[in-house]
Amino acid sequence: MKKILIATSFLLFSINSGFAQNDAEMIRKIYDEVLQNGQAYEQLRFLTKQIGPRLTGSPQAAAAVDWTKEAMEDLGFDNVFLQEVLVPHWVRGEKEEARILNSRKLGTVEVDVTALGNSIGTGPEGILGNVVEVQNFLELLKLGEEGIKGKIVFFNRRMDPKSVSTFAAYGMAGDQRRSGPSEAAKFGAVAVLVRSLTQVIDDNPHTGGTRYQEDAPKIPAAAISTEDAEFLSLLLKEEPDLKFYLRTNAMMKKEKLSHNVIGELKGSEKPDEYIAIGGHLDSWDLAEGAHDDGAGCVQSIEVLRALKAIGYKPKRTLRAVMFMNEENGLRGGRKYAEMAEVNKEKHLAAMESDRGGFTPKGFTLDMDERKLKRIQAWKYLFEPYKIFEFEAGGGGADIGPLKSQNVPLIGFKPDDQRYFKYHHTQIDTFDKVDERELHMGAATMAALVYLIDKYGL
Amino acid sequence: MKKILIATSFLLFSINSGFAQNDAEMIRKIYDEVLQNGQAYEQLRFLTKQIGPRLTGSPQAAAAVDWTKEAMEDLGFDNVFLQEVLVPHWVRGEKEEARILNSRKLGTVEVDVTALGNSIGTGPEGILGNVVEVQNFLELLKLGEEGIKGKIVFFNRRMDPKSVSTFAAYGMAGDQRRSGPSEAAKFGAVAVLVRSLTQVIDDNPHTGGTRYQEDAPKIPAAAISTEDAEFLSLLLKEEPDLKFYLRTNAMMKKEKLSHNVIGELKGSEKPDEYIAIGGHLDSWDLAEGAHDDGAGCVQSIEVLRALKAIGYKPKRTLRAVMFMNEENGLRGGRKYAEMAEVNKEKHLAAMESDRGGFTPKGFTLDMDERKLKRIQAWKYLFEPYKIFEFEAGGGGADIGPLKSQNVPLIGFKPDDQRYFKYHHTQIDTFDKVDERELHMGAATMAALVYLIDKYGL
Repeated sequence: MKKILIATSFLLFSINSGFAQNDAEMIRKIYDEVLQNGQAYEQLRFLTKQIGPRLTGSPQAAAAVDWTKEAMEDLGFDNVFLQEVLVPHWVRGEKEEARILNSRKLGTVEVDVTALGNSIGTGPEGILGNVVEVQNFLELLKLGEEGIKGKIVFFNRRMDPKSVSTFAAYGMAGDQRRSGPSEAAKFGAVAVLVRSLTQVIDDNPHTGGTRYQEDAPKIPAAAISTEDAEFLSLLLKEEPDLKFYLRTNAMMKKEKLSHNVIGELKGSEKPDEYIAIGGHLDSWDLAEGAHDDGAGCVQSIEVLRALKAIGYKPKRTLRAVMFMNEENGLRGGRKYAEMAEVNKEKHLAAMESDRGGFTPKGFTLDMDERKLKRIQAWKYLFEPYKIFEFEAGGGGADIGPLKSQNVPLIGFKPDDQRYFKYHHTQIDTFDKVDERELHMGAATMAALVYLIDKYGL
Repeated sequence: MKKILIATSFLLFSINSGFAQNDAEMIRKIYDEVLQNGQAYEQLRFLTKQIGPRLTGSPQAAAAVDWTKEAMEDLGFDNVFLQEVLVPHWVRGEKEEARILNSRKLGTVEVDVTALGNSIGTGPEGILGNVVEVQNFLELLKLGEEGIKGKIVFFNRRMDPKSVSTFAAYGMAGDQRRSGPSEAAKFGAVAVLVRSLTQVIDDNPHTGGTRYQEDAPKIPAAAISTEDAEFLSLLLKEEPDLKFYLRTNAMMKKEKLSHNVIGELKGSEKPDEYIAIGGHLDSWDLAEGAHDDGAGCVQSIEVLRALKAIGYKPKRTLRAVMFMNEENGLRGGRKYAEMAEVNKEKHLAAMESDRGGFTPKGFTLDMDERKLKRIQAWKYLFEPYKIFEFEAGGGGADIGPLKSQNVPLIGFKPDDQRYFKYHHTQIDTFDKVDERELHMGAATMAALVYLIDKYGL
């Protein structure tokens, strides 16, 4: 610990007295370039409005691969290439249907649903059953087969509105969606409804991936909006015997070949050392995937574009990586790490932007304490841009598999208050992204990449 | 200076060791209350969607006075009253028209314009003239009467996109709108066009107040969008002799009686000491005035509502103040200060929210250094909410007149990247406000009000 303090003090001293002026100037140059000439916003417009939803395995996902490759080639990156990835190919099928039937009070009430990613369909006749509401897996256990068998389990634990960190609240509520269907199936449930993962009450159902466990039957699963969840819960209190009808048409098809897309600026001193900056190219099928994660893709490209535009010659090879299949498989992230290992590509660091294109607040850092302190010592360089948060935390799903190779992982952290309003819904569209916020984020990412490239980690 | 340090250290010590636990808990309670039960968002929905644009002197401004009074009464505030204010009554009149005429290249091109607030109209025939583009008042001086007389002056200085602080950029560009018409009129200009005050390039003309000087003829003045400004500027380079037609129908009518609306929670220990928290009730006529400044009004009400809801008994009297006529006269702000002086109301502090309903970042503080340090010593209590900025800076237009009574002024500071995209345009509508962002802001304001009330300043 003492060593760290000495090292950190030394670092602070050397930066403050030595290169600080240049670094501050370089970082100002980066922000100026992105704020004046940033292309991320117009690229995002194309990705979302011209290509649209990019569900893994879809024609639009393939189009996004082609287009981002071409876009990076057009920007004159030194090397742009595809990395083959075998991906799952889940499709939603025709429109889902759901309704509350035979309510004594209200008769039939239509409910908007969205099948969870990777889930199976109900079959053409749908599923009709009583609904049992639970908050968590412990309640499943208490109810047992007796209380659950033949029924539709309704997970209704809310994402805590009191949590200032929306991601923390998401983390606390996400097990319902990810594991709920299998956990309920173990007790004989015939289908699962999940309350949408958002802190606000509105009428958008939020999809998202679920994972069937090997030791449980696969049952259909769908999300309902928070508004409908509140409503259904109230109604169940008065009419616990009401019937719910669900019809989903989703299915998992044969795996397909898809790609990660990688663009490089070659390193001038250590070309065999890499800094990867990425987002994921796939999105859910409900909307344009503007914040999740078109934003992260175009920001990653913008990092390289801006550094090149201001004439910076990176020491290491910088890579913008468009990962495929984050949403329902993470195959792209796994493949990237696998190939890094196979090709013995030493990664100095990996950075991910997958929390939306909002005003930057800082970074979450997943690395040893020495490296963490090293990055924190650069904090003062970001203060003029009102960037204050450099704390320990996860890097991100796509870069996660690099952790076993001891790669320091960096999660770009924008303001997160609006994120889960749009997340995995039909309203995650281009118009929800602000040009200046998106570009401020890209500039902030580029500034940290510059420092890491210049000084190592 | 030494005294200040000692005082500050003492304060830090006493807070950290003494009441800190209670304060942290109370502030957590405030955030919990607002994030779970906040009413500001639904109130804003009413103010913007049911009442709508609230230009000073309009029926909607009067409706907003009635409605906010009733809303605060319904919330059970101890005292709610109106303060008479004589206000200017400017009206836009029928739709404005503008076009580029007889361009050799393009023929006639329609241009969207919006008359500047307080400006006179062109008369029914409109004004036809050559256009001379300038960046600033110095260029007017260089051109002189010879270059300006009989022409339409086009102020085209952009709001610097490189400025991370959008308000700083606004400050650097705002003289064109505020004083441009009179400055140009001194050299014989017949009308003025102003580039809209926003850092992005889009097609929304932004209105805003202008002020005619006594020593210059009044000439019509209108804003054009940044997109049209760029276009007109390019075209003028090729065709400096092109003609521009402008017709505006604005006029200043007779002054009217309007009101500030004030709601109070009575102080339990020092009822004659006040903390005022306010926003302005009037808006421009182009849109619903959601961010500017419906947000500030409902947040101010929410501060009192939330403190009351958690059972906090303020020592001082807390006031939510809805100021009238910030946009084109500041009469409400002036009247409030005047009445405070007349009635010998000692204000411990005044806080204003007039920078939009975005994620809170902190406060700007306009007060002596001792008080500034005192507030900065509370910074650590805001860190759990990712609020980091407590710096010297202006309090706000409406509370500004209290400065001569030595009242410490506090400007609520939300994230500002999106603000000037919407500012004074038709797109400043309810859907641009996010519920969580608005409520996080209200909670942050309430937390600081609590500390000031409890400890004094």
